Amino acid sequence: MKFVTYVYEGEESIGILQNNEIFNIRNLLEKMGEKDIPRTMQKFIEYLNEDNLNRIERFLNDRGVESVLLDSVKLKAPIPYPERNVFCLGKNYIEHAREIKITRISGNGIPSAPIYFTKVASPAVGTGDNIEFSTKVTKQVDYEAELGVVIGKDGVNIRAEDAEEYIFGYTIINDVSARDLQGKHTQWFKGKSLDTFCPMGPCIVHKNEIPFPVSLDIKCMVNGEIRQNSNTKNLIFNIPYIISDLSKGMTLKAGDIISTGTPSGVGMGFEPIKVLKNGDVVECYIEKIGSLVNHVVETL
Amino acid sequence: MKFVTYVYEGEESIGILQNNEIFNIRNLLEKMGEKDIPRTMQKFIEYLNEDNLNRIERFLNDRGVESVLLDSVKLKAPIPYPERNVFCLGKNYIEHAREIKITRISGNGIPSAPIYFTKVASPAVGTGDNIEFSTKVTKQVDYEAELGVVIGKDGVNIRAEDAEEYIFGYTIINDVSARDLQGKHTQWFKGKSLDTFCPMGPCIVHKNEIPFPVSLDIKCMVNGEIRQNSNTKNLIFNIPYIISDLSKGMTLKAGDIISTGTPSGVGMGFEPIKVLKNGDVVECYIEKIGSLVNHVVETL
Repeated sequence: MKFVTYVYEGEESIGILQNNEIFNIRNLLEKMGEKDIPRTMQKFIEYLNEDNLNRIERFLNDRGVESVLLDSVKLKAPIPYPERNVFCLGKNYIEHAREIKITRISGNGIPSAPIYFTKVASPAVGTGDNIEFSTKVTKQVDYEAELGVVIGKDGVNIRAEDAEEYIFGYTIINDVSARDLQGKHTQWFKGKSLDTFCPMGPCIVHKNEIPFPVSLDIKCMVNGEIRQNSNTKNLIFNIPYIISDLSKGMTLKAGDIISTGTPSGVGMGFEPIKVLKNGDVVECYIEKIGSLVNHVVETL
Repeated sequence: MKFVTYVYEGEESIGILQNNEIFNIRNLLEKMGEKDIPRTMQKFIEYLNEDNLNRIERFLNDRGVESVLLDSVKLKAPIPYPERNVFCLGKNYIEHAREIKITRISGNGIPSAPIYFTKVASPAVGTGDNIEFSTKVTKQVDYEAELGVVIGKDGVNIRAEDAEEYIFGYTIINDVSARDLQGKHTQWFKGKSLDTFCPMGPCIVHKNEIPFPVSLDIKCMVNGEIRQNSNTKNLIFNIPYIISDLSKGMTLKAGDIISTGTPSGVGMGFEPIKVLKNGDVVECYIEKIGSLVNHVVETL
């Protein structure tokens, strides 16, 4: 099942995406007789469990529930305002770690432990939205297609073998990065956190639809040219390891998003480097999730 | 004026601290005939402006408003659940940058640009609360007394000369740090973000009480022994610069907290290093704000 946050006739709602139709979750749960109906994806993540997921699926299949066409709505990021910064991993695909070593953003090569940092997403932008920046602030904007893991329930010191139980689903993150600011400020946070630098979407796919361990093709195209092309099975630190390691002494919470790192082929890895420019179209694709498409706009 | 979040007879409220009395802000605003009364510090920060601040001050002085004694309440962090991770600066006092260079957490010495990272605070703990950690997770826990700047209104590309206008007030942050995890994970985020690693408080002092530029004595005592002793005038990057620089291309929001960095004297700067141990009492003091006191508890 795929979940979206969308605007239809001026109203923001959460919905279930099936083929090209969106079913409004509030309407659906009202018809099912539910009380305390979640109005946001964050609340829906906290609400959902195997039992009510099964009931929703049965209800959707058995009854005639009204829907709207995907084409008639504006998709937003599935979680436009995550309650905490997005957790990110750096250099988590071997070939990417190598290309970045060459370009000397940092000189460590392949990491011996996960590299965690965070990224502001308030709001995260949706598919179709702009990535905007001023060339007064940065002149080296880069894309990074990444698999985002959405946490489904709170946990601390989670064992790797229990990790899947703590996952709600999967989305796509474009970890847009100002390479000059990453270098200038040493720690990566600022260069990762400019306004509009966290495209997310187009949907969250529930974990039930994606076999574990997660092996999904991942690509990034700039103006149709394939720049990144890998598979999430190539992560250096895999999802169970990340969830176990990150949650050591630090509670992960329902609605948290972990962006698992990007494969090789970022603009910074080319010689000469390729930076994003006004008018570029960036498409991040992950098998079974879809495409996250954003337009690059340079402002004054 | 000093603002606190506190629990009295099982109920969490926000209040104004004067001497040893706390005035409940909800009661006060109800008596003043206000509508849409803010229930949390975040909402109060969004609500407060010069006009209603003056009216609150006059009302408090003129009327007999009931209060409770400070001793009878449990103080919490003034903003227990900040809407975004706490923004932090690394190596922002010269002597601290030098001591850290020696101990090789990172080899850069005095930074040429601010070093920004973030810290999870969900919740931030209050004065009197425990700093808890398992020695299975970290064996090198350190204190860092810091001045926290609380942002009062949203802004992007803020000019340094306008910075004070965007400040709500000031608090104390203990940027508790797991040194071994900072080194292991390269980026500092994880080592800064274990549960209970963001003590904050005891209050937020409104900016009207603290002349600008901010020149306040700052100290940290461990079991009564003075370890850190400096003044916020010694910041390498001062508050107007930080607000201006950090807000370049990234919107700062009301309720955001910027922890401005720590002076020399951290445990990691001693030879041999001094780590926090079970039973230690850490007091972070800043002139005009007060003392933030926390107890160290090692868990299994």
